[in-house]
Amino acid sequence: MNILELDTVSFDTETNELIIIDQTLLPGELQMMRLSDASAIREAIKRLCVRGAPAIGVAAALGLYACACRIQQNFEAEFLRCAELIETARPTAVNLSWAVKRMRTAFQKSSASEALRLEALRQEAFSIRDEDIDVCRRIGENGLALISNGDGILTHCNAGQLATVRYGTALAPIHVGVRRGMNFRVYTDETRPLLQGARLSAFEMVSAGVETTVLCDNMAASLMKTGAIQAVFVGCDRVARNGDTANKIGTLGVAIMAKHFGIPFYVCAPTSTIDLDCPNGESIEIENRADEEVTEMWYKERMAPEGVKVYNPAFDVTDADLITAFVTENGIVYPPYAF
Amino acid sequence: MNILELDTVSFDTETNELIIIDQTLLPGELQMMRLSDASAIREAIKRLCVRGAPAIGVAAALGLYACACRIQQNFEAEFLRCAELIETARPTAVNLSWAVKRMRTAFQKSSASEALRLEALRQEAFSIRDEDIDVCRRIGENGLALISNGDGILTHCNAGQLATVRYGTALAPIHVGVRRGMNFRVYTDETRPLLQGARLSAFEMVSAGVETTVLCDNMAASLMKTGAIQAVFVGCDRVARNGDTANKIGTLGVAIMAKHFGIPFYVCAPTSTIDLDCPNGESIEIENRADEEVTEMWYKERMAPEGVKVYNPAFDVTDADLITAFVTENGIVYPPYAF
Repeated sequence: MNILELDTVSFDTETNELIIIDQTLLPGELQMMRLSDASAIREAIKRLCVRGAPAIGVAAALGLYACACRIQQNFEAEFLRCAELIETARPTAVNLSWAVKRMRTAFQKSSASEALRLEALRQEAFSIRDEDIDVCRRIGENGLALISNGDGILTHCNAGQLATVRYGTALAPIHVGVRRGMNFRVYTDETRPLLQGARLSAFEMVSAGVETTVLCDNMAASLMKTGAIQAVFVGCDRVARNGDTANKIGTLGVAIMAKHFGIPFYVCAPTSTIDLDCPNGESIEIENRADEEVTEMWYKERMAPEGVKVYNPAFDVTDADLITAFVTENGIVYPPYAF
Repeated sequence: MNILELDTVSFDTETNELIIIDQTLLPGELQMMRLSDASAIREAIKRLCVRGAPAIGVAAALGLYACACRIQQNFEAEFLRCAELIETARPTAVNLSWAVKRMRTAFQKSSASEALRLEALRQEAFSIRDEDIDVCRRIGENGLALISNGDGILTHCNAGQLATVRYGTALAPIHVGVRRGMNFRVYTDETRPLLQGARLSAFEMVSAGVETTVLCDNMAASLMKTGAIQAVFVGCDRVARNGDTANKIGTLGVAIMAKHFGIPFYVCAPTSTIDLDCPNGESIEIENRADEEVTEMWYKERMAPEGVKVYNPAFDVTDADLITAFVTENGIVYPPYAF
């Protein structure tokens, strides 16, 4: 089955289970996970079985509804416990807490009857899912206006369909363009340490029939210098009011290099990713991840010596002045940024 | 045995064999290779069992002498065949052809007697070896003047002892400083695809008792932004007359990022690496390597999908205007560069 025919995050209304593609197994194996327990959902988010800010938000909402369907007693306390467990799975992407907050608000606003509360949660979760699909499609339309047939597009990490329900954010313009018969050359930074670019973006682009080239992260400057890249498109995990943007580690470097070579650098951002409570990048908490992601997982054996320290932040913050424009579902936003 | 007590490239004068540390097995296993056949030496250079521009030069010279010791007939033709095989093992580093050219000249200048020719080759090969040690020590002394006790130093790839006979080039200032009781924090980019930073530089620095932190290449910008880095030191494979510098893929990006953050970017260059026949970076041939270095070698299975193209140049060229200074054995060279 072509991965593009599957939603990255979905819901089985017969069994009331959240369904996600287990992205830790891609591209080698396409396997679905069915989840309905808050601890298991938290773990799936932590382990990056589902990842990408928008997809995490939708998974949290549908997952929380799946949990709610199973509550036997102490409905409110149990619902809030599940919400807390899921909300704190990862700290950086704002969509996770945004989606859980929406579910909590829907819960609180609803009537005290359990059945009505469940129905309110169901509606809110499916709204979040449907909005994500609509928002991504519109980001694709808006972003497409920034590129031309035949362009070389560099992307970092995976902000494609696999990071959302459908279309993606950074890759949405490609998906929308390809469906209209356009051609692009897409270059995917492999994106160490977990290789979402090589494993996920490349897989998704090849599945869409796009000419796709994978490169190690440190090859981006050399590639830009050849003139092969007409634009960079990346996603984001949280945008501060001043435009500073947290995204997958390495994004900052790509932005600096793009500026050096005069290549436009676009951040595709659903407005749900803009955190109005966050004045600037310094206020964004950056998740640090395990040393072993960097020192192990090599083909034979541990590749860094014992005794070495490891620097392994999952994200970095790209300063607003390095960003050519934001592509949102409502249009393109150019500097100066003041959200 | 501590790796720092071993020469990276040496010669057994009893058996007339070139001895190298097989660097493809580090840091897990410390194993020596003994070589005396031109095809095997060519293969060891191609496979990066010995790598680093200066070390390749010394290995080529001592290796060619080892081959010469075994020639039974047609001494000149056979010597030139071996020289050609070794010289063309890899294209980018100038030291390889520089060392082979010196050996060829020594051969041609020597008397026609085979014994005298062999002796001339022996002398030239050991001169190249001894000069490398001396040059690297002097680069270390000169580079040390650019940093202070406690500084954070970022390096890319391995231009340490393992890239030379002793001391290294980019890491020579650290080795020399540590022997004087100084402390540094060294940060090594892991350096995809073959991880010379994680495997070799980190191993060498930990062996020297230095506080060492490994990071993925795409984390360098984030690290620089924290203020942890006071200087970048890298080696080089070929320097053009105008200062454009070929070095391990990723160096260009590090240089652009260092400039962005106002961090000095130093290239440690034995003068043998300066190619006076090369006017600028565009004249430097860049080696492209196998796709599998990027798409495979992962812990479980192939990590990029079938059908993807791969961009895998082994080197990039850093423009002269991104280089704060060259550290040579004869002193520090500041811009404008005109070698």
